[in-house]
Amino acid sequence: MIKFCTHCGANVSFEIPAGDALPRHVCKCCGHIHYENPRLVVGCVAAWENRILLCRRAIEPRLGYWTLPAGFMENGETTAEAATRETFEEAGADIIVDAPFAMVSIAHINQVHLFYRGRLASETHAAGDESLEVGLMLPEDIPWKDMAFRSVTLCLERYLEDLSQGRFGFHESALGPLGKTL
Amino acid sequence: MIKFCTHCGANVSFEIPAGDALPRHVCKCCGHIHYENPRLVVGCVAAWENRILLCRRAIEPRLGYWTLPAGFMENGETTAEAATRETFEEAGADIIVDAPFAMVSIAHINQVHLFYRGRLASETHAAGDESLEVGLMLPEDIPWKDMAFRSVTLCLERYLEDLSQGRFGFHESALGPLGKTL
Repeated sequence: MIKFCTHCGANVSFEIPAGDALPRHVCKCCGHIHYENPRLVVGCVAAWENRILLCRRAIEPRLGYWTLPAGFMENGETTAEAATRETFEEAGADIIVDAPFAMVSIAHINQVHLFYRGRLASETHAAGDESLEVGLMLPEDIPWKDMAFRSVTLCLERYLEDLSQGRFGFHESALGPLGKTL
Repeated sequence: MIKFCTHCGANVSFEIPAGDALPRHVCKCCGHIHYENPRLVVGCVAAWENRILLCRRAIEPRLGYWTLPAGFMENGETTAEAATRETFEEAGADIIVDAPFAMVSIAHINQVHLFYRGRLASETHAAGDESLEVGLMLPEDIPWKDMAFRSVTLCLERYLEDLSQGRFGFHESALGPLGKTL
């Protein structure tokens, strides 16, 4: 929540600027407009032979649950670089990124989740600071009931479907609040 | 540039928070960390019969140059909704979104450009506040030398290539600073 101006420290108001259509936090003193936009969370379905790299989260939200390596994209990097960095940070694995695979809009939390598909450069992997453990799992061993995020479940389902058909596409979808159909 | 804390109005320092890897603007008083992340610019290649909807910009940057309808994604919407909204705002056209088509990372300006492909629901179109004029252009009439942004040129090139092959894919790429190869 923005209460003070990042430029001058004065109070902001929440109003629609001239020529705009949506309310923004506008500085009452210097006029600076604070735009807020959705964030990209970028990750990867990384394979080694017929196994998939999964991480068990050591941090909230969803501590203790399983996820694909993924995290907030940083300024100054490409989406593919973000996927590579996050996979190294969370799972200690060097990957070769193959292609974008799934994109999930989650409007109610102002996020877009983007997953690449790729391969481990070697079998090396190890839990990073944000993971309790990491594992290369066979599809039949994926802990579906203990997944951290619906976007990850959705991505893994599409991945296994495409894998079984021998042909990978790019999958777009959207998720609404839990308990509501979109 | 963040100088003051959005939560308490105190001065911020630029330092690496404990457990983090990158410097952030951290409040010296309340400790609030101000994360800054890349923004998504979302637009559409919208077709009507064999013509493509283009806009000539009425605003900086690149005032007077041609572009696809596109703009910053807003909180609370999906990527497809952003493409639809921007096309209506800038070109007065209702579109049917078909699929994500091109994604371009532009790391040096902290942006990801995402273009859908779609179709106009009717031939209706009209310049919005941010456009000097809009037009449905035949491929041979596209003003390649007067395009506003390289990501738009890249997207249109891929679109026409895919169109000529009768098969649309999803295209990922990255652009570096002008004059530098990536």
